[in-house]
Amino acid sequence: MDDYRGDNNKSKNVSGDKIEGRNAVTEALAAGRTFNRMWILKPEGGKRLEPALAKILDEANKQGIVITRAPRNVLDRISTTHNHQGVIASVAPHEYADLDDILNKAREEGRAPILIALDEIKDAYNLGSVLRIADCCGIDGVIIPERRSVSLDSMVAKASAGAMEYVPVARVTNLAQTLRNLKEKEGFWVCGTDMNGDVSYDKADYSGNLVIVIGSEGDGMRDGVRKCCDFTVEIPMVGHVNSLNAAVAAGVIVFEAARHRRAEG
Amino acid sequence: MDDYRGDNNKSKNVSGDKIEGRNAVTEALAAGRTFNRMWILKPEGGKRLEPALAKILDEANKQGIVITRAPRNVLDRISTTHNHQGVIASVAPHEYADLDDILNKAREEGRAPILIALDEIKDAYNLGSVLRIADCCGIDGVIIPERRSVSLDSMVAKASAGAMEYVPVARVTNLAQTLRNLKEKEGFWVCGTDMNGDVSYDKADYSGNLVIVIGSEGDGMRDGVRKCCDFTVEIPMVGHVNSLNAAVAAGVIVFEAARHRRAEG
Repeated sequence: MDDYRGDNNKSKNVSGDKIEGRNAVTEALAAGRTFNRMWILKPEGGKRLEPALAKILDEANKQGIVITRAPRNVLDRISTTHNHQGVIASVAPHEYADLDDILNKAREEGRAPILIALDEIKDAYNLGSVLRIADCCGIDGVIIPERRSVSLDSMVAKASAGAMEYVPVARVTNLAQTLRNLKEKEGFWVCGTDMNGDVSYDKADYSGNLVIVIGSEGDGMRDGVRKCCDFTVEIPMVGHVNSLNAAVAAGVIVFEAARHRRAEG
Repeated sequence: MDDYRGDNNKSKNVSGDKIEGRNAVTEALAAGRTFNRMWILKPEGGKRLEPALAKILDEANKQGIVITRAPRNVLDRISTTHNHQGVIASVAPHEYADLDDILNKAREEGRAPILIALDEIKDAYNLGSVLRIADCCGIDGVIIPERRSVSLDSMVAKASAGAMEYVPVARVTNLAQTLRNLKEKEGFWVCGTDMNGDVSYDKADYSGNLVIVIGSEGDGMRDGVRKCCDFTVEIPMVGHVNSLNAAVAAGVIVFEAARHRRAEG
Protein backbone atom coordinates (compact mmCIF):
# COMPACT_ATOMS: atom_id res chain seq x y z
CA MET A 1 0.00 0.00 0.00
CA ASP A 2 2.81 2.38 0.92
CA ASP A 3 4.65 1.48 -2.22
CA TYR A 4 1.68 2.25 -4.34
CA ARG A 5 1.07 5.63 -2.73
CA GLY A 6 4.71 6.52 -3.05
CA ASP A 7 4.54 5.68 -6.71
CA ASN A 8 1.40 7.72 -7.09
CA ASN A 9 3.00 10.82 -5.65
CA LYS A 10 6.07 10.58 -7.81
CA SER A 11 4.13 10.23 -11.01
CA LYS A 12 2.95 13.38 -12.71
CA ASN A 13 0.48 11.46 -14.82
CA VAL A 14 -1.11 8.73 -12.77
CA SER A 15 -3.72 7.99 -15.41
CA GLY A 16 -0.88 7.18 -17.78
CA ASP A 17 0.07 4.25 -15.57
CA LYS A 18 -3.33 2.63 -15.44
CA ILE A 19 -4.47 -0.20 -17.63
CA GLU A 20 -8.17 -0.95 -17.87
CA GLY A 21 -10.35 -3.60 -19.46
CA ARG A 22 -10.01 -7.37 -19.77
CA ASN A 23 -8.00 -7.64 -22.98
CA ALA A 24 -5.59 -4.87 -22.04
CA VAL A 25 -4.93 -6.28 -18.55
CA THR A 26 -4.67 -9.87 -19.81
CA GLU A 27 -2.08 -8.86 -22.40
CA ALA A 28 -0.14 -6.81 -19.83
CA LEU A 29 -0.03 -9.88 -17.54
CA ALA A 30 1.13 -12.08 -20.41
CA ALA A 31 3.76 -9.55 -21.49
CA GLY A 32 5.34 -9.44 -18.03
CA ARG A 33 4.63 -5.76 -17.27
CA THR A 34 5.41 -4.61 -13.70
CA PHE A 35 2.14 -4.29 -11.78
CA ASN A 36 1.85 -2.01 -8.75
CA ARG A 37 -1.68 -3.05 -7.90
CA MET A 38 -4.91 -4.38 -9.39
CA TRP A 39 -8.58 -3.69 -8.66
CA ILE A 40 -11.06 -6.41 -9.60
CA LEU A 41 -14.85 -6.23 -9.36
CA LYS A 42 -16.46 -7.76 -6.27
CA PRO A 43 -19.88 -8.92 -7.52
CA GLU A 44 -22.88 -7.85 -5.46
CA GLY A 45 -24.99 -10.21 -3.35
CA GLY A 46 -22.42 -12.99 -3.24
CA LYS A 47 -22.65 -13.68 -7.00
CA ARG A 48 -19.77 -15.52 -8.64
CA LEU A 49 -17.13 -13.63 -10.58
CA GLU A 50 -17.48 -13.91 -14.35
CA PRO A 51 -15.10 -16.52 -15.84
CA ALA A 52 -13.05 -13.95 -17.79
CA LEU A 53 -12.40 -11.93 -14.63
CA ALA A 54 -11.79 -15.06 -12.54
CA LYS A 55 -9.04 -16.04 -14.99
CA ILE A 56 -7.38 -12.64 -14.62
CA LEU A 57 -7.67 -12.86 -10.81
CA ASP A 58 -6.07 -16.30 -10.86
CA GLU A 59 -3.12 -15.15 -12.98
CA ALA A 60 -2.65 -12.00 -10.87
CA ASN A 61 -2.56 -14.14 -7.73
CA LYS A 62 0.05 -16.41 -9.32
CA GLN A 63 2.20 -13.35 -10.11
CA GLY A 64 1.86 -12.12 -6.51
CA ILE A 65 0.19 -8.85 -7.49
CA VAL A 66 -1.53 -6.81 -4.75
CA ILE A 67 -5.24 -7.18 -5.46
CA THR A 68 -8.18 -5.15 -4.17
CA ARG A 69 -11.68 -6.53 -4.62
CA ALA A 70 -13.94 -3.50 -5.05
CA PRO A 71 -17.63 -2.86 -5.84
CA ARG A 72 -18.57 -1.36 -9.20
CA ASN A 73 -18.94 2.22 -7.96
CA VAL A 74 -15.34 2.22 -6.70
CA LEU A 75 -14.04 0.94 -10.05
CA ASP A 76 -16.16 3.56 -11.84
CA ARG A 77 -14.52 6.26 -9.72
CA ILE A 78 -10.96 5.02 -10.33
CA SER A 79 -11.51 4.49 -14.06
CA THR A 80 -10.17 6.99 -16.56
CA THR A 81 -11.46 5.24 -19.68
CA HIS A 82 -15.01 4.77 -18.32
CA ASN A 83 -15.02 1.29 -19.77
CA HIS A 84 -13.09 -0.80 -17.24
CA GLN A 85 -15.05 -4.04 -17.70
CA GLY A 86 -14.47 -4.95 -14.04
CA VAL A 87 -10.68 -4.69 -13.89
CA ILE A 88 -8.18 -1.85 -13.51
CA ALA A 89 -4.44 -2.16 -12.93
CA SER A 90 -1.79 0.32 -11.87
CA VAL A 91 1.45 -0.51 -13.66
CA ALA A 92 4.94 0.91 -13.98
CA PRO A 93 4.97 3.47 -16.81
CA HIS A 94 5.16 2.01 -20.28
CA GLU A 95 8.73 2.05 -21.54
CA TYR A 96 9.43 3.48 -24.93
CA ALA A 97 11.72 1.55 -27.23
CA ASP A 98 15.03 2.69 -28.63
CA LEU A 99 14.94 3.06 -32.42
CA ASP A 100 18.42 1.51 -32.78
CA ASP A 101 17.27 -1.56 -30.83
CA ILE A 102 14.30 -1.93 -33.18
CA LEU A 103 16.56 -1.79 -36.24
CA ASN A 104 19.14 -4.15 -34.74
CA LYS A 105 16.50 -6.76 -33.90
CA ALA A 106 15.23 -6.81 -37.50
CA ARG A 107 18.80 -7.03 -38.82
CA GLU A 108 19.65 -9.90 -36.48
CA GLU A 109 16.61 -11.73 -37.79
CA GLY A 110 17.77 -11.07 -41.36
CA ARG A 111 14.77 -8.96 -42.34
CA ALA A 112 14.50 -5.56 -43.99
CA PRO A 113 12.74 -3.51 -41.28
CA ILE A 114 9.36 -1.86 -41.85
CA LEU A 115 8.25 0.97 -39.56
CA ILE A 116 5.24 3.25 -39.17
CA ALA A 117 5.79 6.92 -38.25
CA LEU A 118 2.81 8.88 -36.94
CA ASP A 119 3.04 12.64 -37.42
CA GLU A 120 1.23 14.23 -34.45
CA ILE A 121 -1.65 11.79 -34.04
CA LYS A 122 -3.83 13.33 -31.33
CA ASP A 123 -6.49 10.68 -30.73
CA ALA A 124 -5.80 7.80 -28.32
CA TYR A 125 -8.30 5.62 -30.18
CA ASN A 126 -6.39 6.13 -33.44
CA LEU A 127 -3.00 5.38 -31.88
CA GLY A 128 -4.42 2.25 -30.24
CA SER A 129 -5.92 1.14 -33.56
CA VAL A 130 -2.59 1.72 -35.35
CA LEU A 131 -0.77 -0.40 -32.75
CA ARG A 132 -3.25 -3.23 -33.50
CA ILE A 133 -2.53 -2.82 -37.23
CA ALA A 134 1.22 -2.87 -36.51
CA ASP A 135 0.88 -6.06 -34.46
CA CYS A 136 -1.24 -7.80 -37.10
CA CYS A 137 1.14 -6.84 -39.94
CA GLY A 138 4.40 -7.65 -38.14
CA ILE A 139 5.61 -4.04 -38.25
CA ASP A 140 8.96 -3.76 -36.44
CA GLY A 141 8.14 -0.56 -34.60
CA VAL A 142 6.15 2.67 -34.49
CA ILE A 143 7.73 6.13 -34.24
CA ILE A 144 5.90 9.06 -32.63
CA PRO A 145 7.13 12.59 -31.92
CA GLU A 146 7.53 13.64 -28.29
CA ARG A 147 5.42 16.74 -28.65
CA ARG A 148 1.87 17.35 -29.89
CA SER A 149 1.20 13.64 -30.05
CA VAL A 150 -0.82 11.38 -27.80
CA SER A 151 1.47 9.25 -25.59
CA LEU A 152 1.18 5.65 -24.43
CA ASP A 153 -1.42 6.09 -21.69
CA SER A 154 -4.31 4.03 -20.38
CA MET A 155 -6.68 5.15 -23.15
CA VAL A 156 -4.22 3.97 -25.79
CA ALA A 157 -3.64 0.71 -23.91
CA LYS A 158 -7.39 0.05 -23.88
CA ALA A 159 -7.86 1.02 -27.54
CA SER A 160 -4.91 -1.17 -28.54
CA ALA A 161 -6.62 -4.26 -27.03
CA GLY A 162 -3.23 -5.36 -25.72
CA ALA A 163 -1.14 -4.65 -28.84
CA MET A 164 0.71 -1.89 -26.93
CA GLU A 165 2.46 -4.62 -24.95
CA TYR A 166 4.03 -6.13 -28.08
CA VAL A 167 4.68 -3.34 -30.57
CA PRO A 168 7.82 -1.29 -29.77
CA VAL A 169 7.12 2.44 -29.85
CA ALA A 170 10.03 4.89 -30.12
CA ARG A 171 9.52 8.51 -29.20
CA VAL A 172 11.73 11.05 -31.00
CA THR A 173 12.28 14.76 -30.50
CA ASN A 174 12.30 15.68 -34.18
CA LEU A 175 10.44 13.37 -36.55
CA ALA A 176 11.74 15.02 -39.75
CA GLN A 177 15.34 14.65 -38.52
CA THR A 178 14.72 11.00 -37.61
CA LEU A 179 13.32 10.32 -41.09
CA ARG A 180 16.37 11.98 -42.69
CA ASN A 181 18.67 9.84 -40.54
CA LEU A 182 16.80 6.69 -41.53
CA LYS A 183 17.22 7.66 -45.21
CA GLU A 184 20.82 8.76 -45.13
CA LYS A 185 22.36 6.46 -42.53
CA GLU A 186 20.16 3.37 -42.59
CA GLY A 187 19.14 3.14 -46.25
CA PHE A 188 15.41 3.54 -45.66
CA TRP A 189 12.75 4.55 -48.16
CA VAL A 190 10.37 7.11 -46.66
CA CYS A 191 6.81 6.57 -47.93
CA GLY A 192 4.40 9.42 -47.17
CA THR A 193 0.60 9.23 -47.36
CA ASP A 194 -1.44 12.05 -48.81
CA MET A 195 -4.78 12.97 -50.35
CA ASN A 196 -2.87 13.76 -53.56
CA GLY A 197 0.04 11.33 -53.59
CA ASP A 198 2.48 10.46 -56.38
CA VAL A 199 1.10 6.96 -56.86
CA SER A 200 -1.96 4.91 -55.93
CA TYR A 201 -1.36 2.91 -52.72
CA ASP A 202 -1.78 -0.40 -54.58
CA LYS A 203 0.83 0.47 -57.25
CA ALA A 204 3.69 1.56 -54.96
CA ASP A 205 6.99 -0.23 -54.35
CA TYR A 206 7.03 -1.19 -50.69
CA SER A 207 10.21 -3.28 -50.75
CA GLY A 208 13.42 -2.76 -48.75
CA ASN A 209 13.92 -0.83 -45.52
CA LEU A 210 10.69 1.14 -45.35
CA VAL A 211 9.01 3.68 -43.09
CA ILE A 212 5.38 4.59 -43.82
CA VAL A 213 4.42 8.05 -42.55
CA ILE A 214 0.80 8.71 -41.51
CA GLY A 215 -0.28 12.35 -41.05
CA SER A 216 -2.39 13.76 -38.23
CA GLU A 217 -6.17 13.47 -38.17
CA GLY A 218 -7.03 16.94 -39.41
CA ASP A 219 -4.00 18.28 -41.19
CA GLY A 220 -2.10 15.36 -42.68
CA MET A 221 1.69 15.43 -42.72
CA ARG A 222 3.49 18.64 -41.76
CA ASP A 223 5.54 20.33 -44.52
CA GLY A 224 8.88 19.49 -42.90
CA VAL A 225 7.91 15.81 -42.74
CA ARG A 226 6.51 15.80 -46.26
CA LYS A 227 9.83 17.07 -47.62
CA CYS A 228 11.58 13.98 -46.21
CA CYS A 229 9.41 11.58 -48.22
CA ASP A 230 10.93 9.73 -51.17
CA PHE A 231 7.42 9.21 -52.53
CA THR A 232 3.83 9.60 -51.38
CA VAL A 233 0.94 7.19 -51.87
CA GLU A 234 -2.72 8.12 -52.15
CA ILE A 235 -5.91 6.11 -51.68
CA PRO A 236 -8.24 6.60 -54.68
CA MET A 237 -11.66 7.85 -53.54
CA VAL A 238 -14.90 8.29 -55.44
CA GLY A 239 -17.28 9.84 -52.88
CA HIS A 240 -18.53 13.22 -51.73
CA VAL A 241 -16.67 13.67 -48.47
CA ASN A 242 -13.54 11.66 -49.29
CA SER A 243 -11.97 11.68 -45.86
CA LEU A 244 -10.96 8.57 -43.96
CA ASN A 245 -10.32 8.14 -40.28
CA ALA A 246 -6.51 8.21 -39.79
CA ALA A 247 -6.39 4.65 -38.42
CA VAL A 248 -8.51 3.30 -41.29
CA ALA A 249 -6.23 4.99 -43.85
CA ALA A 250 -3.21 3.54 -42.04
CA GLY A 251 -4.83 0.08 -42.12
CA VAL A 252 -5.57 0.19 -45.85
CA ILE A 253 -2.01 1.28 -46.75
CA VAL A 254 -0.03 -0.79 -44.24
CA PHE A 255 -1.92 -4.02 -45.06
CA GLU A 256 -1.31 -3.36 -48.75
CA ALA A 257 2.42 -2.86 -48.04
CA ALA A 258 2.46 -6.10 -46.01
CA ARG A 259 0.68 -7.91 -48.85
CA HIS A 260 3.27 -6.71 -51.41
CA ARG A 261 6.17 -7.70 -49.14
CA ARG A 262 4.63 -11.16 -48.58
CA ALA A 263 4.24 -11.64 -52.33
CA GLU A 264 7.87 -10.66 -52.88
CA GLY A 265 8.81 -13.27 -50.35
CA MET B 1 -39.03 28.89 -30.67
CA ASP B 2 -42.43 27.27 -30.23
CA ASP B 3 -41.80 25.02 -33.17
CA TYR B 4 -38.50 23.90 -31.77
CA ARG B 5 -39.94 23.10 -28.35
CA GLY B 6 -42.80 21.23 -29.94
CA ASP B 7 -40.29 19.16 -31.85
CA ASN B 8 -38.30 18.57 -28.74
CA ASN B 9 -41.26 17.19 -26.85
CA LYS B 10 -42.26 14.84 -29.59
CA SER B 11 -38.82 13.37 -29.94
CA LYS B 12 -37.85 10.56 -27.61
CA ASN B 13 -34.19 10.99 -28.42
CA VAL B 14 -33.35 14.63 -28.77
CA SER B 15 -29.63 13.98 -28.85
CA GLY B 16 -30.24 11.89 -31.96
CA ASP B 17 -31.37 15.01 -33.75
CA LYS B 18 -28.33 17.10 -33.01
CA ILE B 19 -25.36 17.55 -35.31
CA GLU B 20 -22.13 18.93 -33.88
CA GLY B 21 -18.79 20.02 -35.26
CA ARG B 22 -17.78 22.01 -38.32
CA ASN B 23 -17.46 19.23 -40.90
CA ALA B 24 -20.68 17.50 -39.84
CA VAL B 25 -22.72 20.74 -39.87
CA THR B 26 -21.18 21.92 -43.15
CA GLU B 27 -22.03 18.63 -44.85
CA ALA B 28 -25.58 18.70 -43.41
CA LEU B 29 -26.04 22.22 -44.84
CA ALA B 30 -24.70 21.12 -48.23
CA ALA B 31 -26.89 18.00 -48.24
CA GLY B 32 -30.07 20.01 -47.68
CA ARG B 33 -31.02 18.55 -44.29
CA THR B 34 -33.95 20.22 -42.51
CA PHE B 35 -32.57 22.40 -39.69
CA ASN B 36 -34.70 23.30 -36.69
CA ARG B 37 -32.12 25.59 -35.15
CA MET B 38 -28.40 26.28 -34.92
CA TRP B 39 -26.16 27.45 -32.09
CA ILE B 40 -22.92 29.18 -33.08
CA LEU B 41 -20.18 30.39 -30.74
CA LYS B 42 -20.21 34.06 -29.76
CA PRO B 43 -16.52 34.88 -29.21
CA GLU B 44 -15.68 36.64 -25.96
CA GLY B 45 -14.55 40.26 -25.69
CA GLY B 46 -15.79 41.28 -29.13
CA LYS B 47 -13.30 39.03 -30.97
CA ARG B 48 -14.07 38.06 -34.56
CA LEU B 49 -15.57 34.69 -35.38
CA GLU B 50 -13.10 32.20 -36.87
CA PRO B 51 -13.37 32.03 -40.69
CA ALA B 52 -14.63 28.41 -40.70
CA LEU B 53 -17.48 29.29 -38.34
CA ALA B 54 -18.19 32.55 -40.15
CA LYS B 55 -18.68 30.55 -43.36
CA ILE B 56 -21.17 28.24 -41.64
CA LEU B 57 -23.00 31.26 -40.16
CA ASP B 58 -23.21 32.85 -43.60
CA GLU B 59 -24.65 29.71 -45.22
CA ALA B 60 -27.11 29.19 -42.34
CA ASN B 61 -28.32 32.78 -42.75
CA LYS B 62 -28.79 32.21 -46.48
CA GLN B 63 -30.92 29.15 -45.74
CA GLY B 64 -33.03 31.13 -43.23
CA ILE B 65 -32.13 28.91 -40.29
CA VAL B 66 -32.93 30.17 -36.77
CA ILE B 67 -29.52 30.95 -35.25
CA THR B 68 -28.57 31.54 -31.63
CA ARG B 69 -25.18 33.09 -30.86
CA ALA B 70 -24.09 31.58 -27.54
CA PRO B 71 -20.98 31.70 -25.31
CA ARG B 72 -18.80 28.61 -25.03
CA ASN B 73 -20.25 27.43 -21.71
CA VAL B 74 -23.76 27.28 -23.21
CA LEU B 75 -22.52 25.22 -26.19
CA ASP B 76 -20.64 22.95 -23.79
CA ARG B 77 -23.88 22.34 -21.89
CA ILE B 78 -25.95 21.60 -25.01
CA SER B 79 -23.26 19.37 -26.55
CA THR B 80 -23.62 15.60 -26.42
CA THR B 81 -20.36 14.77 -28.22
CA HIS B 82 -18.25 17.14 -26.04
CA ASN B 83 -16.42 18.18 -29.19
CA HIS B 84 -18.72 20.74 -30.81
CA GLN B 85 -15.98 22.99 -32.27
CA GLY B 86 -18.22 26.05 -31.85
CA VAL B 87 -21.32 24.87 -33.70
CA ILE B 88 -24.30 22.67 -32.85
CA ALA B 89 -27.45 22.19 -34.93
CA SER B 90 -30.81 20.66 -34.17
CA VAL B 91 -32.09 18.91 -37.29
CA ALA B 92 -35.05 16.77 -38.30
CA PRO B 93 -34.23 13.11 -37.53
CA HIS B 94 -32.01 11.40 -40.06
CA GLU B 95 -34.08 9.40 -42.50
CA TYR B 96 -33.16 5.80 -43.13
CA ALA B 97 -33.11 4.63 -46.72
CA ASP B 98 -35.26 1.92 -48.26
CA LEU B 99 -33.19 -1.06 -49.41
CA ASP B 100 -35.25 -1.40 -52.61
CA ASP B 101 -34.54 2.22 -53.48
CA ILE B 102 -30.80 1.62 -53.01
CA LEU B 103 -30.91 -1.40 -55.36
CA ASN B 104 -33.06 0.39 -57.94
CA LYS B 105 -30.72 3.36 -58.08
CA ALA B 106 -27.72 1.12 -58.82
CA ARG B 107 -29.70 -0.77 -61.47
CA GLU B 108 -30.81 2.46 -63.15
CA GLU B 109 -27.18 3.51 -63.33
CA GLY B 110 -26.30 0.14 -64.86
CA ARG B 111 -24.04 -0.97 -62.01
CA ALA B 112 -23.92 -4.20 -60.00
CA PRO B 113 -24.64 -2.95 -56.47
CA ILE B 114 -22.17 -3.36 -53.61
CA LEU B 115 -23.41 -3.08 -50.02
CA ILE B 116 -21.94 -3.29 -46.51
CA ALA B 117 -23.96 -5.02 -43.76
CA LEU B 118 -22.94 -4.37 -40.14
CA ASP B 119 -23.96 -7.08 -37.68
CA GLU B 120 -24.66 -5.32 -34.36
CA ILE B 121 -21.92 -2.69 -34.41
CA LYS B 122 -22.19 -0.98 -31.01
CA ASP B 123 -19.67 1.83 -31.28
CA ALA B 124 -20.68 5.17 -32.83
CA TYR B 125 -17.06 5.85 -33.77
CA ASN B 126 -16.90 2.59 -35.74
CA LEU B 127 -20.19 3.19 -37.55
CA GLY B 128 -19.06 6.73 -38.43
CA SER B 129 -15.72 5.41 -39.73
CA VAL B 130 -17.50 2.75 -41.83
CA LEU B 131 -19.74 5.43 -43.39
CA ARG B 132 -16.56 7.33 -44.38
CA ILE B 133 -15.18 4.12 -45.94
CA ALA B 134 -18.49 3.57 -47.77
CA ASP B 135 -18.44 7.13 -49.13
CA CYS B 136 -14.80 6.86 -50.27
CA CYS B 137 -15.37 3.49 -51.99
CA GLY B 138 -18.67 4.34 -53.68
CA ILE B 139 -20.61 1.73 -51.73
CA ASP B 140 -24.31 1.88 -52.69
CA GLY B 141 -25.62 1.53 -49.16
CA VAL B 142 -25.09 0.25 -45.63
CA ILE B 143 -27.46 -2.15 -43.86
CA ILE B 144 -27.78 -2.21 -40.07
CA PRO B 145 -30.17 -4.21 -37.86
CA GLU B 146 -32.80 -2.28 -35.88
CA ARG B 147 -31.86 -3.82 -32.57
CA ARG B 148 -28.59 -4.08 -30.64
CA SER B 149 -26.90 -1.72 -33.07
CA VAL B 150 -25.91 1.91 -32.76
CA SER B 151 -28.28 4.15 -34.74
CA LEU B 152 -27.67 7.29 -36.78
CA ASP B 153 -27.29 9.79 -33.96
CA SER B 154 -25.16 12.87 -33.35
CA MET B 155 -22.11 10.85 -32.29
CA VAL B 156 -22.21 8.91 -35.57
CA ALA B 157 -22.76 12.10 -37.55
CA LYS B 158 -19.66 13.63 -35.94
CA ALA B 159 -17.53 10.48 -36.40
CA SER B 160 -18.63 10.20 -40.03
CA ALA B 161 -17.25 13.71 -40.77
CA GLY B 162 -20.28 14.35 -42.95
CA ALA B 163 -20.38 11.00 -44.80
CA MET B 164 -23.69 10.16 -43.04
CA GLU B 165 -25.36 12.77 -45.26
CA TYR B 166 -24.40 10.94 -48.44
CA VAL B 167 -24.33 7.21 -47.73
CA PRO B 168 -27.83 5.64 -47.65
CA VAL B 169 -28.35 3.51 -44.54
CA ALA B 170 -31.18 0.95 -44.44
CA ARG B 171 -32.35 -0.41 -41.12
CA VAL B 172 -33.83 -3.93 -41.18
CA THR B 173 -35.63 -5.99 -38.55
CA ASN B 174 -33.85 -9.25 -39.32
CA LEU B 175 -30.41 -9.05 -40.91
CA ALA B 176 -30.15 -12.80 -41.67
CA GLN B 177 -33.52 -12.73 -43.46
CA THR B 178 -32.47 -9.64 -45.43
CA LEU B 179 -29.25 -11.39 -46.53
CA ARG B 180 -31.24 -14.48 -47.61
CA ASN B 181 -33.59 -12.26 -49.63
CA LEU B 182 -30.66 -10.52 -51.30
CA LYS B 183 -29.23 -13.94 -52.25
CA GLU B 184 -32.41 -15.61 -53.41
CA LYS B 185 -34.38 -12.75 -54.94
CA GLU B 186 -31.72 -10.26 -56.01
CA GLY B 187 -28.83 -12.51 -57.04
CA PHE B 188 -26.38 -11.23 -54.44
CA TRP B 189 -23.19 -12.91 -53.20
CA VAL B 190 -22.94 -12.67 -49.43
CA CYS B 191 -19.29 -12.22 -48.34
CA GLY B 192 -18.68 -12.70 -44.63
CA THR B 193 -15.57 -11.60 -42.72
CA ASP B 194 -14.00 -13.79 -40.10
CA MET B 195 -10.80 -14.50 -38.16
CA ASN B 196 -10.74 -17.90 -39.90
CA GLY B 197 -12.28 -17.31 -43.29
CA ASP B 198 -12.39 -19.54 -46.39
CA VAL B 199 -10.03 -17.36 -48.38
CA SER B 200 -7.56 -14.51 -47.84
CA TYR B 201 -9.21 -11.12 -48.40
CA ASP B 202 -6.88 -10.36 -51.32
CA LYS B 203 -7.70 -13.61 -53.17
CA ALA B 204 -11.51 -13.44 -53.06
CA ASP B 205 -13.89 -12.87 -55.95
CA TYR B 206 -15.68 -9.59 -55.25
CA SER B 207 -17.51 -9.32 -58.59
CA GLY B 208 -21.25 -9.10 -59.19
CA ASN B 209 -24.00 -8.04 -56.79
CA LEU B 210 -22.17 -8.15 -53.50
CA VAL B 211 -22.84 -7.55 -49.82
CA ILE B 212 -19.88 -7.58 -47.41
CA VAL B 213 -20.85 -8.47 -43.83
CA ILE B 214 -18.79 -7.04 -40.94
CA GLY B 215 -19.25 -8.60 -37.48
CA SER B 216 -19.60 -6.77 -34.18
CA GLU B 217 -16.60 -5.42 -32.26
CA GLY B 218 -16.29 -8.19 -29.72
CA ASP B 219 -18.04 -11.22 -31.11
CA GLY B 220 -17.82 -11.08 -34.89
CA MET B 221 -20.79 -12.28 -36.96
CA ARG B 222 -23.68 -14.06 -35.21
CA ASP B 223 -24.23 -17.71 -36.18
CA GLY B 224 -27.48 -16.98 -38.01
CA VAL B 225 -25.75 -14.36 -40.12
CA ARG B 226 -22.69 -16.52 -40.72
CA LYS B 227 -24.90 -19.27 -42.16
CA CYS B 228 -26.13 -16.87 -44.85
CA CYS B 229 -22.62 -16.25 -46.19
CA ASP B 230 -21.64 -17.75 -49.55
CA PHE B 231 -17.99 -17.40 -48.52
CA THR B 232 -15.96 -15.73 -45.81
CA VAL B 233 -12.73 -13.77 -46.17
CA GLU B 234 -9.97 -13.47 -43.59
CA ILE B 235 -7.17 -10.97 -43.11
CA PRO B 236 -3.83 -12.79 -42.64
CA MET B 237 -2.17 -11.72 -39.38
CA VAL B 238 1.28 -12.44 -38.00
CA GLY B 239 1.27 -10.80 -34.55
CA HIS B 240 0.62 -11.65 -30.92
CA VAL B 241 -2.79 -10.07 -30.35
CA ASN B 242 -4.18 -10.36 -33.87
CA SER B 243 -7.29 -8.31 -33.41
CA LEU B 244 -8.22 -5.31 -35.52
CA ASN B 245 -10.62 -2.52 -34.75
CA ALA B 246 -13.90 -3.30 -36.61
CA ALA B 247 -13.71 -0.17 -38.77
CA VAL B 248 -10.06 -0.85 -39.71
CA ALA B 249 -10.93 -4.43 -40.71
CA ALA B 250 -13.86 -3.10 -42.75
CA GLY B 251 -11.53 -0.59 -44.42
CA VAL B 252 -8.93 -3.18 -45.39
CA ILE B 253 -11.52 -5.53 -46.92
CA VAL B 254 -13.85 -3.00 -48.55
CA PHE B 255 -10.97 -1.08 -50.18
CA GLU B 256 -9.61 -4.40 -51.50
CA ALA B 257 -13.04 -5.27 -52.91
CA ALA B 258 -13.27 -1.82 -54.53
CA ARG B 259 -9.78 -2.28 -55.98
CA HIS B 260 -10.74 -5.65 -57.54
CA ARG B 261 -13.95 -4.22 -58.99
CA ARG B 262 -12.06 -1.24 -60.46
CA ALA B 263 -9.53 -3.61 -62.06
CA GLU B 264 -12.35 -5.68 -63.57
CA GLY B 265 -13.77 -2.46 -65.00
